Amino acid sequence: MQPINVGVLGLGTVGAGVVRLLEVNGNEITRRAGRRIRVVHAAVRDLERARDCDTAEIRMTDQPADVVNDPDVDVVLELIGGETDAYDLVMAAIANGKHVVTANKQLIAIHGDAIFAAADQKDVVVSFEAAVAGGIPIIKVIRESLAANHIEWLAGIINGTGNFILSQMMFAGKTFAEALAEAQELGFAEADPTFDVEGIDAAHKLAILASIAFGIPLSFAKIYTQGIRELQAEDIEHAAELGYRIKHLGIAIKREEGVELRVHPALVPEQAMLATVEGEKNAVMVYADAVGPTGYYGAGAGAGPTASAVVADLVDTVRIHSIDPSGRVPHLAFQPDAINPAMILGHEEFVCGHYFRLQVADEPGVMAEITRLLAEMEISIESILQKDPIDATDDAAIIIVTKPVREGYLLRVLDQIRALPYSRAGLVHLRVADFAD
Amino acid sequence: MQPINVGVLGLGTVGAGVVRLLEVNGNEITRRAGRRIRVVHAAVRDLERARDCDTAEIRMTDQPADVVNDPDVDVVLELIGGETDAYDLVMAAIANGKHVVTANKQLIAIHGDAIFAAADQKDVVVSFEAAVAGGIPIIKVIRESLAANHIEWLAGIINGTGNFILSQMMFAGKTFAEALAEAQELGFAEADPTFDVEGIDAAHKLAILASIAFGIPLSFAKIYTQGIRELQAEDIEHAAELGYRIKHLGIAIKREEGVELRVHPALVPEQAMLATVEGEKNAVMVYADAVGPTGYYGAGAGAGPTASAVVADLVDTVRIHSIDPSGRVPHLAFQPDAINPAMILGHEEFVCGHYFRLQVADEPGVMAEITRLLAEMEISIESILQKDPIDATDDAAIIIVTKPVREGYLLRVLDQIRALPYSRAGLVHLRVADFAD
Repeated sequence: MQPINVGVLGLGTVGAGVVRLLEVNGNEITRRAGRRIRVVHAAVRDLERARDCDTAEIRMTDQPADVVNDPDVDVVLELIGGETDAYDLVMAAIANGKHVVTANKQLIAIHGDAIFAAADQKDVVVSFEAAVAGGIPIIKVIRESLAANHIEWLAGIINGTGNFILSQMMFAGKTFAEALAEAQELGFAEADPTFDVEGIDAAHKLAILASIAFGIPLSFAKIYTQGIRELQAEDIEHAAELGYRIKHLGIAIKREEGVELRVHPALVPEQAMLATVEGEKNAVMVYADAVGPTGYYGAGAGAGPTASAVVADLVDTVRIHSIDPSGRVPHLAFQPDAINPAMILGHEEFVCGHYFRLQVADEPGVMAEITRLLAEMEISIESILQKDPIDATDDAAIIIVTKPVREGYLLRVLDQIRALPYSRAGLVHLRVADFAD
Repeated sequence: MQPINVGVLGLGTVGAGVVRLLEVNGNEITRRAGRRIRVVHAAVRDLERARDCDTAEIRMTDQPADVVNDPDVDVVLELIGGETDAYDLVMAAIANGKHVVTANKQLIAIHGDAIFAAADQKDVVVSFEAAVAGGIPIIKVIRESLAANHIEWLAGIINGTGNFILSQMMFAGKTFAEALAEAQELGFAEADPTFDVEGIDAAHKLAILASIAFGIPLSFAKIYTQGIRELQAEDIEHAAELGYRIKHLGIAIKREEGVELRVHPALVPEQAMLATVEGEKNAVMVYADAVGPTGYYGAGAGAGPTASAVVADLVDTVRIHSIDPSGRVPHLAFQPDAINPAMILGHEEFVCGHYFRLQVADEPGVMAEITRLLAEMEISIESILQKDPIDATDDAAIIIVTKPVREGYLLRVLDQIRALPYSRAGLVHLRVADFAD
């Protein structure tokens, strides 16, 4: 059979990884796919720069439009990132009737609806397995393998940089700033780490996962997002003492009232699978009604894992050529006319356990007052830790973990606690994420 | 679009689960698949028996041939188990040009080559996601999501009954016999538990996984298989003391010399993902060259999880109708003419660490003699535990864990040790499975 010709936009770490993988495992991939997949055309910004792959057989250009318009190219692989140029090029490729494979989570999370509508119109497919959790095949699993299920929730460590930083804070006793610096030195974090540490990257991915899990439109802008920059080492320690690890999670929960979409640091019970995921690794737990909890673990980034996902999409694309478009796997898992709008809940409506730590003047009756305020709002306590004054001040630390409660109620109590005469500034508040496996 | 009509052979726990799932999640499944999937015909042994599902819309028969020959049936779902009648019925369904979905691991492991050849000839598809690891989509993951990779090894807990028994021995201090009795009471084990506890069921599944991972023929008969019946509580304790959990694993390793295929109890380092899988749950770790280690966790059996996998196969089958057969995912992951014979290694060729425990007369020089014998064969020691005599006898227990070594060398040393004058009968020998995640 004819080989499939791929045109690549961007030949950096991932692009070079894809070219190398198609070279090294080319025979084995053809033994599976039944057709050879080869890169024939690549657009790069700087033609003079050395590449981490053999480009002898590849037509090189610094004009991305050349690739998108090349009649020999069957599939365009978009690896330039960002949402502006990438959007224009992907739309141009679709307009030219080409299938697209992308690793660009930002592009899909923000412009996915427009891109998929254009693709459906032109009977081409846009694939994006590499956009979420790197080498873990979570897109295919949710779209295809769990297709018989009503998915109730998913929770994942979907940003490797953040998880690396948290592991360093936990096990190497580093501060956030020190751990971030190390991540940057090792190449796990960008020079500008905003997207990773503020949870924006995780929110892009969560928007995609929630859409394909629940059959709702992509809802990036409505995701409650909180980063890990403010995390203090002592809360990581207290959490450990109470039997939890702190992880930066993306969480999507389908409730009758609406959908919870949230990215924030969370206390995870130490025996849960997610608690055991360290370093730059990713993992996603999915709870679906028929199958129950299932978990998926692997590398969330890097040239090899991302190339693995990209090439799996290319193999699927090879197979799509002959399929009737109506029989294909829908871009967002559900048929385009079966995607239902959803009420995305505000964070006051979230239901979960809460951790808070406050400094108080070490006076009698403080604990009684705080527990009374919680009881008044019918908030049950899971555990309490009191740390006596450790320095010359008379301050003591009180750490409380509550049972699940509507967040609005808890926030009202926290306001009351902050207003108490013996409360010091700087109350720390984190959520608990108790996802059984 | 026209609904897809399913004919079911066997309406027991799983069959009734499938009918219920298609009913309860019918709308959501149609929103994904684009077509309704409905059971129209079912064959059961006893028409009088009450069923755990609504059969009002299903034509019921006690003649399986009626279902297989029904021109209204698009897909035959085989859930009767065993390898004799199931084989004849599946072959008849294929001859009639019907797609087949089955949860029957024994059938696929033993007769898969003949079944797939017949299916390829008739341009129909035989799907079997439910045959391995229940609700965990490990077949699709390996066949499709890891298609870009050269898979180096996989190791899994792929028999829930056995894992439940081991968890009970570990955490409830039960003997094998007591734990088995409990598994039988709870419905996790059959009245005749041979297939589960002797590793035969796991070997059926391993044959399938190894074939799709490595592109080799189904090799059930060549799998080295050892059960868990002989496991003693004290070895579970000693292993724990040394930092290991004992799990019943299916292991497939691709080496230059050939392929290791083995099912046996193994010591797993306690921090490995596989060590943390308890009860009737399943998990599989796969190491592939591009993506590195990935792990998959979930329910390995039960009506819901199995139905989840079966219906995912039905949805895939819906989509296959319009695809050119040459573009389909090959039954065994690799194109039929690209499946290569493989040298399946004998167990003397396996390379791994070993655990052995021996009772010796508590005399000076014993340890020196044993460690000398190991050193002569260039076998390095990972750890040693010596347990002094605990009763009136003069016996002591010596427990040694070795570093990885070719098994033939280790067995030769064990023979020498057994022949030592102060060695007591009953040396216990187990393997270590150190699969990093």
